[in-house]
Amino acid sequence: MKKNAFYAQSGGVTSVINATASALILESKKYKSKIGKVYAGKNGILGALREDLIDTSKENISAIKGLRETPGGVFGSCRFKLKNLEDNKEEYKRLVEVFKAHNIGYFFYNGGNDSADTAYKVSKISNAMGYPINCIAIPKTVDNDLAVTDCCPGFGSAAKYIATSVMEASLDVASMSETSTKVFILEVMGRHAGWMAAAGSLAKIDKKDAPHITLFPEIVFDEKKFLLEIKKTVNKEGYCVIVTSEGVRNKKGKFLAESNLKDAFGHSQLGGVAPFLSNLINAKLKLKNHWAVSDYLQRSARHIASKTDLAHAEAVGSHAVRYAVRGLNGVMPVIKRGDGKKYSWKVEPAPLSKIANVEKKLPKSFITKDGFGVTNKAIEYLRPLIVGEAFPKFKNGVPVPTKLKLKMVEKKLKKWTG
Amino acid sequence: MKKNAFYAQSGGVTSVINATASALILESKKYKSKIGKVYAGKNGILGALREDLIDTSKENISAIKGLRETPGGVFGSCRFKLKNLEDNKEEYKRLVEVFKAHNIGYFFYNGGNDSADTAYKVSKISNAMGYPINCIAIPKTVDNDLAVTDCCPGFGSAAKYIATSVMEASLDVASMSETSTKVFILEVMGRHAGWMAAAGSLAKIDKKDAPHITLFPEIVFDEKKFLLEIKKTVNKEGYCVIVTSEGVRNKKGKFLAESNLKDAFGHSQLGGVAPFLSNLINAKLKLKNHWAVSDYLQRSARHIASKTDLAHAEAVGSHAVRYAVRGLNGVMPVIKRGDGKKYSWKVEPAPLSKIANVEKKLPKSFITKDGFGVTNKAIEYLRPLIVGEAFPKFKNGVPVPTKLKLKMVEKKLKKWTG
Repeated sequence: MKKNAFYAQSGGVTSVINATASALILESKKYKSKIGKVYAGKNGILGALREDLIDTSKENISAIKGLRETPGGVFGSCRFKLKNLEDNKEEYKRLVEVFKAHNIGYFFYNGGNDSADTAYKVSKISNAMGYPINCIAIPKTVDNDLAVTDCCPGFGSAAKYIATSVMEASLDVASMSETSTKVFILEVMGRHAGWMAAAGSLAKIDKKDAPHITLFPEIVFDEKKFLLEIKKTVNKEGYCVIVTSEGVRNKKGKFLAESNLKDAFGHSQLGGVAPFLSNLINAKLKLKNHWAVSDYLQRSARHIASKTDLAHAEAVGSHAVRYAVRGLNGVMPVIKRGDGKKYSWKVEPAPLSKIANVEKKLPKSFITKDGFGVTNKAIEYLRPLIVGEAFPKFKNGVPVPTKLKLKMVEKKLKKWTG
Repeated sequence: MKKNAFYAQSGGVTSVINATASALILESKKYKSKIGKVYAGKNGILGALREDLIDTSKENISAIKGLRETPGGVFGSCRFKLKNLEDNKEEYKRLVEVFKAHNIGYFFYNGGNDSADTAYKVSKISNAMGYPINCIAIPKTVDNDLAVTDCCPGFGSAAKYIATSVMEASLDVASMSETSTKVFILEVMGRHAGWMAAAGSLAKIDKKDAPHITLFPEIVFDEKKFLLEIKKTVNKEGYCVIVTSEGVRNKKGKFLAESNLKDAFGHSQLGGVAPFLSNLINAKLKLKNHWAVSDYLQRSARHIASKTDLAHAEAVGSHAVRYAVRGLNGVMPVIKRGDGKKYSWKVEPAPLSKIANVEKKLPKSFITKDGFGVTNKAIEYLRPLIVGEAFPKFKNGVPVPTKLKLKMVEKKLKKWTG
């Protein structure tokens, strides 16, 4: 029986989430007897609740292919977590109603562990409501914190951006350090898990190369030890490069980024971790320092995407379709790493119940004893994820993002007022 | 008469200054009857004063060629300005003594307007001391603020990095803006001139594309107007992307980055412009915002260098050698833009007297009337400078920087104690 499909992007986007969408849409066209149209939610799951459905069948194939090279979320994403089933069953019911009204039998939800949870619940409630839907969550997050899967599409490209940036900035700092900047700080994302901070160490070719200090959210910040390590490094190497996660906390469990800055009127100000550390180094070590905060740049840097990561992103998109047409439900296509010495990987289905709401932190064995670096084991895990380049096409000096027509499907239901 | 050459890098490095060094060393080898060895100053001009000379003839040709892909300053650079001739003639005398001791007849100084000034003075004093040296300053600065030359090697690549980053981050913000971040701020370099801030506008393909607001050091910051413009943009586009120069000042002439932040103990803290604006937007507009500060990342991003900029960087290096062997003195090879509609350029010599200590700001005609954007004239000037890609080789997921042997020349003089 032929059913339409619904695809939505959820939460923080990545440089390759559109590659997943592209692969999913193209793969769906191979199963014409089972899958009708692919509708995309405008602004993620909100698109389903509001019946804001984008008809991807109206787009040119070349545009769908171009999504492979376009960062951001082309259909719009959102930060919107469905409430618990018990607290607000109406939201889930509305989803099923919209799906029913548009003959949608497949629900693809491209996000992190929240999305896995939502897909899991929709799968259950749709059965209970007598309109069973095949729900497949598709992994995506630069945070790399999903359980079961070996890695998360989006992370490898952010990791490649961070490693390359650390290497480049370090060469800059090293060449000027005698008479200028001695300490350079790069703040990266990862509020709860240090995967992105760890990626900075992929810049190292020789042991003494930067970064010299990494601060992880998994390790409580120790000011004294940190300052001592900087001093030691500057004495030895002439300069010191620090990669810090935005999520580093002090002994009281407070984010360093939230620590006590006030403006001239006494109002509390939010800083970043990097400026906080910079001020600390100014005050305590009086060493000239510079800092950078990559913020969205790191998760949208499609121009330096990892070819491996891009392949993962596409594979989870196409496998999601294959699982759906095979009748799988409540699963996620996950990346499984091969056992051999040479990196290999395949995609396999994993039950959402094992993934929903679980957060995978950096294992202890990945962090060096002093808490300031990563182990060989971490590098062995991380390295393959950034290998290979997949430069986008450029025109007039800048990449060419694909713009879609984004034609909306006619609404059939009453306006959602939830 | 065969003489050795001395080459030094000065001031803030760029992603392509080593390409200039590479071209200069390779070109020198073509004039074996006139140029002996090329010595490079360790840490810039300090290398000459301290007689810390690196013998580039000991390097493999493949390594010299590899410099083309290596950011930073491979011989070391420095922030060290020679004093005025009147204040400290000893420094200039020492330079000439070192040059004499090592049979150096060519002085190539790769830097900004300070370096042009130094080269100019050395040229004059060496004549007066009876040991004439051919002094050639070679342009380099991401700030793009040198006079006479159409543009400065290093700038085009930083501009390409900024334009690409603005485009990518904007796609990210746009896709999330309904339920998440509405304003994104990118802080770029350029303390006195807005060239790099202007480069952000190269991200625009359609008129309504980001960036929506640019803040230049040439325009006094007007808080009210700024906040109103954000509000207008968010209402119209759903989000607002701001590119700000680090050098924006308020009506009192004070850098915004220096404005009155205090820590818990009442100590003044240095912030950046981006966090300052973020706090302002939080307080006055209550719009969720994110900010990024590129800092050294933008000037060392060799992975996204402009092919045009790289060609400029190499051309000024090889032309410097040609000028020197032709007996030119006190000149700089500058980029001259052709008059035709299609971008063309050549290199020609310009007298250092016209370049030394002059700073070229963004012309008024490049900034829109409201002070928040750039004109078509600016885009016409900027666009060709970022055209073309020149990706470096990657290995194991990261670029491969060239490491040199850096063999030192035996010293002949007493230690410098200046």
